[in-house]
Amino acid sequence: MTSTDIPSLWQSLRFDANGLVTAIAQQHDTGEVLMLAWMNRDAIAETLATGRVCYFSRSRGQLWRKGESSGQVQHLVELRIDCDGDALLLLVDQKGVACHTGRRSCFYRATRDGALQEIMAPEIDPERLYGTAHV
Amino acid sequence: MTSTDIPSLWQSLRFDANGLVTAIAQQHDTGEVLMLAWMNRDAIAETLATGRVCYFSRSRGQLWRKGESSGQVQHLVELRIDCDGDALLLLVDQKGVACHTGRRSCFYRATRDGALQEIMAPEIDPERLYGTAHV
Repeated sequence: MTSTDIPSLWQSLRFDANGLVTAIAQQHDTGEVLMLAWMNRDAIAETLATGRVCYFSRSRGQLWRKGESSGQVQHLVELRIDCDGDALLLLVDQKGVACHTGRRSCFYRATRDGALQEIMAPEIDPERLYGTAHV
Repeated sequence: MTSTDIPSLWQSLRFDANGLVTAIAQQHDTGEVLMLAWMNRDAIAETLATGRVCYFSRSRGQLWRKGESSGQVQHLVELRIDCDGDALLLLVDQKGVACHTGRRSCFYRATRDGALQEIMAPEIDPERLYGTAHV
């Protein structure tokens, strides 16, 4: 994945009023859904050009190169687009953990037995990922 | 999954300005990501109460009981929520196909060899799903 020159992709994308599409990151070999985030045109172009996933942070209003602070990068294996062009499925190879809490996936809570239960433990102390300032 | 009385879930949900959260549907046993859609409070409550997935259609501005027209229903196996509470991962048992094009998944196009390629063929003629009026 080192080319951004895919006209049919760009023609198929349907960005929202904020210039964004949703992006699901899925571990390519295990099928685990890791996280959901957002991408703008520049984030998609950079991801395709570098092979490392770059999102757009809505809270910070800027490109978010996944793993830039934490080292937990995502290598792109394949980019897929849905039928109406406003959602992407990124098949990735996730180094370490995807979630800022130190868990492999952001979807670590499930409704079981009438309660919301944690079904995944942190694998890394968040302090080790970001330093105490971010915890 | 027949109860909506899960206070910790409702407390954890963070709806956007339109009262929505994103929802990813994943086939529970194969790990295949089927589609991405949206849910409001009522859609989540109905899904938990009935065990059949109900979304909120942004284009129609109303509840969208998946499979109501097409018969391709999704049975809920487990509902998960992400770290910041604005995205859900629905582990489902999808009857038939998830996509209105007759394909198993909405993510049937992938960037391969510098082009956007169809990697999944329709399994059902959309006319059989919805009748000609919807095609």
